[in-house]
Amino acid sequence: MDAEAPTQLLDPGLTGQPARPVPGIDNGFLAGYRVRFDEAGPDGRLRTSTLLRYAQDVAWRHSEQLGFDRGWYLARGLGWVVRAVELAVHEPIPIGHTLRVSTAVVGHRRIWARRLGECRLADGRPAATVTTDWVLLDARNRVVRIPQDFGVAFTNPEVKSEILRVEPSVGEATSEIELGVRPSDLDPLDHVNNAVYVDWLEEALEAAGWREATEVLPRTYRLEYLASAARGDRVNVVLRGDPSAWQASIHRPDGGELVRAQGSTPG
Amino acid sequence: MDAEAPTQLLDPGLTGQPARPVPGIDNGFLAGYRVRFDEAGPDGRLRTSTLLRYAQDVAWRHSEQLGFDRGWYLARGLGWVVRAVELAVHEPIPIGHTLRVSTAVVGHRRIWARRLGECRLADGRPAATVTTDWVLLDARNRVVRIPQDFGVAFTNPEVKSEILRVEPSVGEATSEIELGVRPSDLDPLDHVNNAVYVDWLEEALEAAGWREATEVLPRTYRLEYLASAARGDRVNVVLRGDPSAWQASIHRPDGGELVRAQGSTPG
Repeated sequence: MDAEAPTQLLDPGLTGQPARPVPGIDNGFLAGYRVRFDEAGPDGRLRTSTLLRYAQDVAWRHSEQLGFDRGWYLARGLGWVVRAVELAVHEPIPIGHTLRVSTAVVGHRRIWARRLGECRLADGRPAATVTTDWVLLDARNRVVRIPQDFGVAFTNPEVKSEILRVEPSVGEATSEIELGVRPSDLDPLDHVNNAVYVDWLEEALEAAGWREATEVLPRTYRLEYLASAARGDRVNVVLRGDPSAWQASIHRPDGGELVRAQGSTPG
Repeated sequence: MDAEAPTQLLDPGLTGQPARPVPGIDNGFLAGYRVRFDEAGPDGRLRTSTLLRYAQDVAWRHSEQLGFDRGWYLARGLGWVVRAVELAVHEPIPIGHTLRVSTAVVGHRRIWARRLGECRLADGRPAATVTTDWVLLDARNRVVRIPQDFGVAFTNPEVKSEILRVEPSVGEATSEIELGVRPSDLDPLDHVNNAVYVDWLEEALEAAGWREATEVLPRTYRLEYLASAARGDRVNVVLRGDPSAWQASIHRPDGGELVRAQGSTPG
């Protein structure tokens, strides 16, 4: 069956709607995500990683609405992958709450584009923001220049700023855990979904006795994705720093680095 | 903040709507779930376990709509837990598709209630069904008799049939894997969410070289939940049988059985 065919029949409440969440950007998209039981942890709040799941989904909805659906990408052998993400959490988001998640492409340069995802509570207060730098890969997983095709649909400024990066962590490792990739961690690109690494980071923080780093509000995480973990891989998550300013490296046992991350909380 | 307060502001497309999916049952509920990118596997189809996530979420929405929200349960120290589930998958469910998931309590006996969840494609074809037998626990995790409170809101027949069970598996074990509970597997009841065990079963089937058992359509899984896995636990998943008729036992290293399961495909 065809994944695109049923689009006509969709409820607008589920498909979302065009929006202009960012001044000066002439298109964007808004959809609601109700926090499910399985998406909340023992504290009854949305798991941090799920913010990335919502943000990538609303980006897909927006892209589809403008004609760039899964079929469009498959036909061209192209696919966006997340190169870096910055996640800021401001408010607790309880189970059963419907988050308003908006998205807009706020800028681009030759080989990357930046999306801003804003998550608001039903009363309008900002609960979280997800800034994502995407790069486009071809069928051989090579970064390609962003084609003109997107120009008309996604008008946004060419920016001077640099793609998000995370410095290599330095200093003595504080703790380390080892994890195995589960088949359920894999997404349609057949690699570990970018949100899963946030679960791994929080697992490492918790194992280090730094659970506060995963609970304090506000807090910010930044991740730079260097390479993908795949089916059957084992990974090590190494922490440095302290709960209010930590650095992490997720690498393969042979040392190949997959993700660099850092987190901070005020004060 | 109050999880219930924003309900007034919700889009009906997201909150769902009353429905009568089962003849003879005078109430039920229907909501749409669009398959997100992170909810699909490398084949671009919804992960089987996510059907249980949708089914438990739509049950919550239905319950809330009738006045039994999280606050109601917390105030009384009560909580439904899944005692057994039967999952039948009929059709592939692709990423981006909006499943129509309906739910109704189709029967009850003294200490358990049965919910039928039906998942339909946008064109109306049935894609999956999830039958769930729930029991109600008090604050000390003891099974309690279902109180009269539910009677008026959830009218359904008292049934003669028995609660779903799975026979202990017999014969020589075919394969076994060991897994650790991840913090991200825990739900608001602070135990491993019932859907996660389906991921574990499919991981064990795949590790045994029986991936066909997780892909063939139609296929049926039945799970009986005997005890909960919790933070930090390790579990073993033991398989018996063959890909078209398998049995599984998920147990703690000390032998304490958590879940019995079986799966079958026609022919």
